[in-house]
Amino acid sequence: MAKIIYVAIGNEILIGKIINTNESFIGTRLTSAGIPLESSMTIKDDKEIIMKTLEDCWEHYDVVIVTGGLGPTHDDVTKYAICDLFNKELHFDSSVWEAIQKMYEMKDTPLPEIVKTQAEIPQEFTPLPNKKGTAPGLYYSANNKHFFALPGVPSEMKSMFVEHVIPILQKNFSAHPIFQKTIRTIGIPESALYTDTQNVQETAQTKIAFLPKSGMVDIRVYGTSEQEIEEIITKFLKKIPSKNIYGFDDDTIEELFHKKMIASRKTISAAESCTGGLIQSLITDNAGSSEYFLGGVVSYSNEAKMKLLGVKESTLEKFGAVSEDTVREMVLGVQELMGCDYAIAVSGIAGPDGGTDDKPVGLVYIVTFGKTGLVITKNNFSGTRIEVKMKTALTAMHQLAINT
Amino acid sequence: MAKIIYVAIGNEILIGKIINTNESFIGTRLTSAGIPLESSMTIKDDKEIIMKTLEDCWEHYDVVIVTGGLGPTHDDVTKYAICDLFNKELHFDSSVWEAIQKMYEMKDTPLPEIVKTQAEIPQEFTPLPNKKGTAPGLYYSANNKHFFALPGVPSEMKSMFVEHVIPILQKNFSAHPIFQKTIRTIGIPESALYTDTQNVQETAQTKIAFLPKSGMVDIRVYGTSEQEIEEIITKFLKKIPSKNIYGFDDDTIEELFHKKMIASRKTISAAESCTGGLIQSLITDNAGSSEYFLGGVVSYSNEAKMKLLGVKESTLEKFGAVSEDTVREMVLGVQELMGCDYAIAVSGIAGPDGGTDDKPVGLVYIVTFGKTGLVITKNNFSGTRIEVKMKTALTAMHQLAINT
Repeated sequence: MAKIIYVAIGNEILIGKIINTNESFIGTRLTSAGIPLESSMTIKDDKEIIMKTLEDCWEHYDVVIVTGGLGPTHDDVTKYAICDLFNKELHFDSSVWEAIQKMYEMKDTPLPEIVKTQAEIPQEFTPLPNKKGTAPGLYYSANNKHFFALPGVPSEMKSMFVEHVIPILQKNFSAHPIFQKTIRTIGIPESALYTDTQNVQETAQTKIAFLPKSGMVDIRVYGTSEQEIEEIITKFLKKIPSKNIYGFDDDTIEELFHKKMIASRKTISAAESCTGGLIQSLITDNAGSSEYFLGGVVSYSNEAKMKLLGVKESTLEKFGAVSEDTVREMVLGVQELMGCDYAIAVSGIAGPDGGTDDKPVGLVYIVTFGKTGLVITKNNFSGTRIEVKMKTALTAMHQLAINT
Repeated sequence: MAKIIYVAIGNEILIGKIINTNESFIGTRLTSAGIPLESSMTIKDDKEIIMKTLEDCWEHYDVVIVTGGLGPTHDDVTKYAICDLFNKELHFDSSVWEAIQKMYEMKDTPLPEIVKTQAEIPQEFTPLPNKKGTAPGLYYSANNKHFFALPGVPSEMKSMFVEHVIPILQKNFSAHPIFQKTIRTIGIPESALYTDTQNVQETAQTKIAFLPKSGMVDIRVYGTSEQEIEEIITKFLKKIPSKNIYGFDDDTIEELFHKKMIASRKTISAAESCTGGLIQSLITDNAGSSEYFLGGVVSYSNEAKMKLLGVKESTLEKFGAVSEDTVREMVLGVQELMGCDYAIAVSGIAGPDGGTDDKPVGLVYIVTFGKTGLVITKNNFSGTRIEVKMKTALTAMHQLAINT
């Protein structure tokens, strides 16, 4: 199997200013192609360090993929380090230059002089077309080894990676894919899920990983064939209540919600307090959500709850804004206001302040009106304000999705 | 200066399932402490690979910081690799065990048997307390070199890093900080900003970086003293209109908005169409936003615009939902509905569908009602649906923030 290393070049990553999402993209695409990453590195955009690191990688790996430092400005030195490493000169590539000129013509903006250096590439390197920017990718191969230098800007890197890097690697390396499938769960703590499925884990011959995130837990099953995985998955599914499984692999609660709502042919609306608009924002992240989502209300203050949703002052006084009675009146209020079929309402304490012994930070009431009518749950979420908001939003969307 | 490497252990990162946000956190904190990262790596959670990599790092670096693989399950092998590398045995640490028991007592949940292995640590290693989980950090020092193994779960790693790792490093290495300051801009394209400030860039002796993100551009200035940086910053500030500068360093538009609103002692509300609740969600991400934010409306459908906000049917028919006239009626409508002082309303085409020649995807009208009354802007944002939503939200919040 090919040994592949990914090297990100950029001080911005090392000083923590940028989160390197390219690593995750490259990792995902290589894994799907059956030629997963062996390791990855991040190094400074210093010409000497780049040269030394790449020299080391070129010696120990079959494939070296570099991103970053290909731009036209003074801190872009990757191309020069590559020339030194492989002992090549830069030469002017007129096909690259034509592509750059054409791109500027299309955009109808003047072409800065500095951009012309982008057409200079190391001799014997193949330029890889850049659909979204001016810096071409650079590809070199020798002794069955493969070297790629790609732009660091994610949108430029991604299309180049999919269209050029993956095909070259697939042509040169026979893939020995490791299969995997993930069960995505919500509403059961990791430790309970682990204990409940201990038997299944013990009988499985291959690797199983538990991956908790945002109050949800993924169970990932690895194997050497799809059949082997399916057998283990089937055993897991017998041990976990189906209402706690929201999907497989890359399925998300947002997508499940979207599909369920489209299929239901019902309209919905939401009344949000502690989530402050997040539920509706997640719903409208889905293109096509206007088919079922009418809009709704962020009833952050008590006044808004009363005025827009008709929550009774006496309810707020007697039970408080964070109570079963209040969310019930909120959901009925937003249904009447918007004239929708289904609805969601939430009220809780996102923190960090505002908690009491009776009603601690993280206490959230979620009410959904779906196929079988009202469902009200009392939840205790842990985490920061932002995490409590997100857990509330996803739990609420899931609660409605399984009742449509 | 100390040479520091960070090694993340985890297949989940390499196969692209998890984005490694720990890298950014560690990078930021080390940079602030004046002892920045030299490089970082991600490797598989395979005991042999871990041992070999760490051996190499321990030879070439002064400080090795490892995260991940410290949990109690079978795929957590970091501790065993460390024992092999440093030739140490595991021993049971009763102080760690007491801390774990206490944590479970506080949570009032039963303690799983498997957790007891967390109290086993390599001999001569110092356990670092874990406030948020059961796995202690592990610290070892020899020959002026320092080795840290920390949990991979971000919340556990972060508090341990700040409370234990940073103080140990600061005690052992005298920092030679590289100073930096960032000017954060919105509303000017990178190329225009670059051209407009070319003189300043040419006179500066130290490094300057342009960092575009989400329609905003950061200009980062590096230097060997604060004074040197301030001189360059001052020159930049003379070339960039102040309305396009929303802050410095880690300032965000969300925070600027929050501070301005708190200071204004005014109440606000929002009526959102294409952003679908995102503006209100960003506002309520700020703890304390209830002081000024009353709530608002997500008027996604035309019906909601008419019914909740009193937008006239004739306006929607004549000019369309995405028009200056509609957003003007939306903002006045939400002010009347909520009884607030200031307000924001947006309507646009987030895409990917729904664009026309006249009204392409990315066209967004933003209206704010602030100190000087109504301000309406017509914007053309590029990017995906999610990006257009985010650019709209931040531009709208900035537009109101500079008019309070």
